[in-house]
Amino acid sequence: MDDAKDFVSTCPVPLSDYNRILLAHGGGGTLMHRLLAQVFYPAFANAILDQQGDGAILSLGGSRLAFTTDSYVVSPLFFPGGDIGTLAVNGTVNDLAMCGARPLYLSAGFIIEEGLPVETLCRVVESMRLSAGAAHVQFVTGDTKVVEKGKGDGLFINTAGIGAIEHDLPIQPRNVKLGDVILLNGDIGRHGLAIMATREGLAFDSDIKSDCAPLADLVLALLDAGIEIHCLRDLTRGGLASGIVEIAATAGVHIHLEERAIPVRDDVRGACEILGFDPLYVANEGRFVVFLPEQDASRALDILRTQVDTEGAACIGSVTDGCPGMVTMTTAIGSRRIVDMLSGEQLPRIC
Amino acid sequence: MDDAKDFVSTCPVPLSDYNRILLAHGGGGTLMHRLLAQVFYPAFANAILDQQGDGAILSLGGSRLAFTTDSYVVSPLFFPGGDIGTLAVNGTVNDLAMCGARPLYLSAGFIIEEGLPVETLCRVVESMRLSAGAAHVQFVTGDTKVVEKGKGDGLFINTAGIGAIEHDLPIQPRNVKLGDVILLNGDIGRHGLAIMATREGLAFDSDIKSDCAPLADLVLALLDAGIEIHCLRDLTRGGLASGIVEIAATAGVHIHLEERAIPVRDDVRGACEILGFDPLYVANEGRFVVFLPEQDASRALDILRTQVDTEGAACIGSVTDGCPGMVTMTTAIGSRRIVDMLSGEQLPRIC
Repeated sequence: MDDAKDFVSTCPVPLSDYNRILLAHGGGGTLMHRLLAQVFYPAFANAILDQQGDGAILSLGGSRLAFTTDSYVVSPLFFPGGDIGTLAVNGTVNDLAMCGARPLYLSAGFIIEEGLPVETLCRVVESMRLSAGAAHVQFVTGDTKVVEKGKGDGLFINTAGIGAIEHDLPIQPRNVKLGDVILLNGDIGRHGLAIMATREGLAFDSDIKSDCAPLADLVLALLDAGIEIHCLRDLTRGGLASGIVEIAATAGVHIHLEERAIPVRDDVRGACEILGFDPLYVANEGRFVVFLPEQDASRALDILRTQVDTEGAACIGSVTDGCPGMVTMTTAIGSRRIVDMLSGEQLPRIC
Repeated sequence: MDDAKDFVSTCPVPLSDYNRILLAHGGGGTLMHRLLAQVFYPAFANAILDQQGDGAILSLGGSRLAFTTDSYVVSPLFFPGGDIGTLAVNGTVNDLAMCGARPLYLSAGFIIEEGLPVETLCRVVESMRLSAGAAHVQFVTGDTKVVEKGKGDGLFINTAGIGAIEHDLPIQPRNVKLGDVILLNGDIGRHGLAIMATREGLAFDSDIKSDCAPLADLVLALLDAGIEIHCLRDLTRGGLASGIVEIAATAGVHIHLEERAIPVRDDVRGACEILGFDPLYVANEGRFVVFLPEQDASRALDILRTQVDTEGAACIGSVTDGCPGMVTMTTAIGSRRIVDMLSGEQLPRIC
């Protein structure tokens, strides 16, 4: 449920000002955090939920487990670089990885709209099979529901996942420390643009594909190398900016970013300029940040750069003295600005 | 994913005869089992999925866990005796209980249609809070998505659950044995009729409320008493008949039922007659069957009758010599008939 609780004080509009749910309540930004903080957290409050990681860390029979869930409502179902099936596997696998866990088991809950071609379902299931194999996880339980035509939108998928935590590090936002550096595993903004281009029938000159990928192997490689990871966060809805603001708020630290250090492909930057998007807020499905002590940064970067598509991994900022909960950035032209969480809804239903 | 694989040989129509998903593919009957057997099982095949219980049994770090998921798409959201929130807790808690597990942790995935009144969401969340408390489980992780108006139907909820298995019994369909008796924890048919009455604006003379209830306390009480449980199954979509046929097919045994022994309230029976339903196929949300050796039956019945609303618990049949995979029943008028799985869709979206 992300980092809602500590963020609520900075939300400008109380939930009660809206009496109906808006698209932005699912957008990963300010309104979603307010919904979590005002409706879900108070009802379900407990010490585990209060960890506010990408998943829950559970102690069970002497073992530590990670447990997480996501529903996938992406539109359209198929897009360059993936489909709802690859998202449904990698999204949940990555949330487990962000807990520092080895992903093991997934559940699958299908909500199908009456009239969906069986062939479409089969294509998605085949993607899920391949993605699960690549991420070394098994589907072990599931559920299928069908709703009347006009009461759904083709196919929604929920996956929940269980992973094993095989180390003793307390990887979570509150473990972020003054002086930590922030590493990012590659260029940002491709997933959101790939969805947008498909949805709107835009043809970019270049070939922008989703970055959707499983991240557990990278995280486990960092852990195996003895890197002292303090916090991990994948950069999905709300993009890099929202993820960093969440962590600054939960950890109560000031985070400073260097815009020049954040890799953005030229074609992505160009498309963002045309569409009026800021790449900092565009969703990714294969990008994450690592908070760790500076002395481990160089070794960690070498490891982060070993995967296909992660050669652009870079150090993009650090945790500094300043205003707790604030994120600032030195821009490409050398000025300094405050980075806020995504406000409103930039691109609905990108995952 | 229920007992699809062994059932496929008895399905009359191959999936390929339909090129689009029908409502009945989510109905818990023949078509749903064919979808599972032809699409999901082949793609996701593994030894754990092959257990075909109400959830998966996992070994992790020396402990045995149960893991299960269900999506809830009930329409309307509120009905006599419960709402989508009570279902979303009890349905998943009960699937864990049917694995013989102690339910511990739940995830919650909300798919909200734009425009849903926030007050409606708050009412459902409050139901979830109360139901989780009653079932002794905690919500520890979650997700919220919003889809555009017209692309959903108010609110869909997925819950996944983790439970601890604290005994060594192999509770599963394949553990059913010749001579086992079958106990049922009370009268059947109320949940489906409560939904139907609300949806269609029917006013029955009497007050038929859903039987929605958590079942883990009863199952744990049976286990604590040393009852040798062979198999458990809750009787949701497809009703008592479909649950029993699934088990007969998976276990490869002949099951015989006594219709006179199956408790059905007079008002439920009357409403079923008016509406043309057979109570055997109407969904329940607080009813389950236990397969166990005859010598444990009397003690088990005493335990089953201890909960509010379960005083009607009864022995309704047994596992006999005969035709493997077949279910027969001595009817109320003394004749003998074959009991099939629900064919087609009786009441869509009852859970």
